[in-house]
Amino acid sequence: MSSAKVLIAGEWRDSDATGTYRAENPSTCQALPCDYPVSSWSDCEEALNAATSAFLALRSPSAEKIANFLERYATLIEERADALVEMAHQETGLPKSPRLADVELPRTTGQLRQAAAAARTGNWRQPIIDSANNIRSCYGSIGPVIVFGPNNFPFAFGSISGGDFAAAIAAGNPVIAKANSSHPGTSKLFAEAAQDAAGAAGLPDGMVQLIYRTSHSIGEQLVTDPRTGATGYTGARKAGLKLKKAADKAGKPIYLELSSVNPVVLLPAVLEEKGAALAEEFTSSCLMGAGQFCTNPGMLVLIKSDAAESFISAVIEQFSANTSGTLLSASVEKSLHESHKILTKAGAEVLCGTGEGNGTGYNVANTLLRVTGFRFLHDPETMQTEAFGNSSLIVVAENINEAEKVIAALEGNLTGCIYSSESGADDASYDRLAPVLRQKTGRLLNDKMPTGVAVSPAMNHGGPYPATGHPGFTAVGIPAALLRFGMLHSFDNVRAHRLPDILKDDYDGPTQRLIDGVWK
Amino acid sequence: MSSAKVLIAGEWRDSDATGTYRAENPSTCQALPCDYPVSSWSDCEEALNAATSAFLALRSPSAEKIANFLERYATLIEERADALVEMAHQETGLPKSPRLADVELPRTTGQLRQAAAAARTGNWRQPIIDSANNIRSCYGSIGPVIVFGPNNFPFAFGSISGGDFAAAIAAGNPVIAKANSSHPGTSKLFAEAAQDAAGAAGLPDGMVQLIYRTSHSIGEQLVTDPRTGATGYTGARKAGLKLKKAADKAGKPIYLELSSVNPVVLLPAVLEEKGAALAEEFTSSCLMGAGQFCTNPGMLVLIKSDAAESFISAVIEQFSANTSGTLLSASVEKSLHESHKILTKAGAEVLCGTGEGNGTGYNVANTLLRVTGFRFLHDPETMQTEAFGNSSLIVVAENINEAEKVIAALEGNLTGCIYSSESGADDASYDRLAPVLRQKTGRLLNDKMPTGVAVSPAMNHGGPYPATGHPGFTAVGIPAALLRFGMLHSFDNVRAHRLPDILKDDYDGPTQRLIDGVWK
Repeated sequence: MSSAKVLIAGEWRDSDATGTYRAENPSTCQALPCDYPVSSWSDCEEALNAATSAFLALRSPSAEKIANFLERYATLIEERADALVEMAHQETGLPKSPRLADVELPRTTGQLRQAAAAARTGNWRQPIIDSANNIRSCYGSIGPVIVFGPNNFPFAFGSISGGDFAAAIAAGNPVIAKANSSHPGTSKLFAEAAQDAAGAAGLPDGMVQLIYRTSHSIGEQLVTDPRTGATGYTGARKAGLKLKKAADKAGKPIYLELSSVNPVVLLPAVLEEKGAALAEEFTSSCLMGAGQFCTNPGMLVLIKSDAAESFISAVIEQFSANTSGTLLSASVEKSLHESHKILTKAGAEVLCGTGEGNGTGYNVANTLLRVTGFRFLHDPETMQTEAFGNSSLIVVAENINEAEKVIAALEGNLTGCIYSSESGADDASYDRLAPVLRQKTGRLLNDKMPTGVAVSPAMNHGGPYPATGHPGFTAVGIPAALLRFGMLHSFDNVRAHRLPDILKDDYDGPTQRLIDGVWK
Repeated sequence: MSSAKVLIAGEWRDSDATGTYRAENPSTCQALPCDYPVSSWSDCEEALNAATSAFLALRSPSAEKIANFLERYATLIEERADALVEMAHQETGLPKSPRLADVELPRTTGQLRQAAAAARTGNWRQPIIDSANNIRSCYGSIGPVIVFGPNNFPFAFGSISGGDFAAAIAAGNPVIAKANSSHPGTSKLFAEAAQDAAGAAGLPDGMVQLIYRTSHSIGEQLVTDPRTGATGYTGARKAGLKLKKAADKAGKPIYLELSSVNPVVLLPAVLEEKGAALAEEFTSSCLMGAGQFCTNPGMLVLIKSDAAESFISAVIEQFSANTSGTLLSASVEKSLHESHKILTKAGAEVLCGTGEGNGTGYNVANTLLRVTGFRFLHDPETMQTEAFGNSSLIVVAENINEAEKVIAALEGNLTGCIYSSESGADDASYDRLAPVLRQKTGRLLNDKMPTGVAVSPAMNHGGPYPATGHPGFTAVGIPAALLRFGMLHSFDNVRAHRLPDILKDDYDGPTQRLIDGVWK
């Protein structure tokens, strides 16, 4: 059987491959039948050329075409939902329902439609007109965008269907998608729908392209190529940091989502009041989807007390009673074991788990680790090793002072949560911890686990390094997510007829503009 | 005579110095009398601690205090204008009038007052409320900011008085200013005024701090320190890239302005129509301030013609007839000579200059170099070596095709200009070159030299690497410049009384908010 074709310059063609690989079904630990090519630089070179041509062929009036494409694409995804769900289920082990069919798929099409609306209104471009100086500015497209999607959301964060894809396209940029190696077949089905939709919408060839895999060095070459505008990467920290280093050196914007332990603080009074309910809430959040969420609560901060001990006992009981979920791949299983080794070697005590799981396919026993605040502070960097999966580290601080030191020693995170009593008994502690936690996190929560990430204009799915590469940008939430794939364009004394439409005096479209200090 | 004191934690104190240095008067090439300390890490450590304390002591209601500080500071600068102008004149050789007293000083105080207004209205924070999900977001302060100012604008870009300073403070961040080594005395006078104003406004100690110089390695330590929020750097490319590498590795935002040749394209018909006037306009723009502007037109692109030759002859004549201006320092003189050597070695022909100047103090003869498009394209990177000063490289392309290739081979620039005939005769050429140039530049101009940088909300003083480190941000223009020193804060289910005021339901202040999709 010959290997799958790549999508380059508007056609499905044989890859100039250096090898092939197969995906696995993580529920059976068996390889799936199709071979996928590992692309050589030649594939990338042609994709970059096609993307550059597509970029130059597009002009601002294309916003309507782009919106039509995104909407048509969403419809085609819905029409092909069964095949997508089936393939993704085989490649990721994620349940067909409700997870893939009823949660992730509608989220994905909803995102594409929100992105279409954002492209059409154009408000993300923030046009500003200074009449006195005849200087005008707006955000414009940045150029071809390379998207590396993660393993854990084959639809909603997929490299050719997810948030980065939708944002980059809506901002007017061609996308070269690099499929996540764990779900190439799902990516291919999406690319087929995207290509059909692009044709129907009249987008230039090269606007949506797909390759499956490259060597690390060719990946680095892609993100640093002069033709590349920017890169979006969601995935493992180690591989992401290599791309970051290369992109930074070349001065190319790269938006990364790398790792996050998502600390959850349970203050004493609320733990006293409803420890049992919190144990259930935490267990459910931490074990859902085998804990394979970017915002999984991987670290709990408690203050030493009898209530804390009761809470911990309850969580151990529940972790032990739950079947361990199927992990996305052999490498996720391996990494989880490795993280446990690093954490226990650094002094974390095993409360339950770390061994083989009792579930299906790749899986690890539901794991709880425990460490004192004192021990945590001895080597905070190691203690923040992300254990991606059904695992969490409980840090028990001696008192509020030590808890504050633990928070202050945190790296950047996507989220940080504090639970406190409604009685006011925890308020003084909240007021000490919240400002410190605020600066470490993109999204601060109260009384709520961090796992859900609403597609809201007020969402920040971002945060300080190493959660992401820059604390000013979000990967979820429209239109803010589009800004990552824009560049600021100022026009100084440019003749009226040469301006983009949204900067012309006689513009009468839908975009809100700041004209001489007033929004219109 | 003992060395000058540093400003740390609200007091002028002896530096823990590893050495001292003196500034020079570039008009006389003589050292000035005062010794300034080279700070050890100990000074930086104390400054970072004080800045961190100041940052935590500030809360959002401080916007009013910050605005009061910025306005009081502007007033004190005006009151102390004579001393500032005198000191800056001695340290930089820039004319007292109109340059320092009548142009740069009002620009500086104007910027500080615009920043005060931006802090007060708070619109830069872009508050968004999603009532249905109870998620709210806004930009918040990023943390202590390190500012490295350039040599060429001792007031308007000065590390403790200029655009980065004003933007970082207005966004609520303490600033640790590293004086440019060529004007430490000017920086000290500013810091005295800033400290007086900070005291009067009731800002916490450590909000404004000044050191004069550090080793490169200590500079790198400063920008990567966990307590540091972000860095602003304007200056030489080589030193800036070292800081960038360190900051990137640590995941700390750094905003750089590194170098720009600011290409100016003169199309054939307009050159035919008014070559003589353009020769004057270009000469005046290029030699003004001895060419020491970030947006100096360092590269001209012409298409081979008789009109181009006449234009070049006229420019040579004017460059030769003008006295060469005083350069800011011995090192600027040295760098300019070095750049000329690199360019001529790579094949540029000397039309005039490159030798010793006929001016006062440090100076180099007004220089024009020439190269064919073909030769330029042979090694575009070397041909884009910035020659910071009274110098420009004329690229003569064989035809419009070759001109397009030259533009396509450009690195990122702050500005790009195209002059074209009003008759329409150049329009086809414009339409080919403009889209290519647009993606290479932060600000695109028509029929106008790039030297002036208006402080306008529609300005983009930024551009793709290596002009800056990220094409989405501007260093000039308020409120956009503040965004560099903000981070995105999302609040998910946070209890109403714990929200920042601008995100509360009952907020009735001046900030415009996007509530459930509608600006209010």
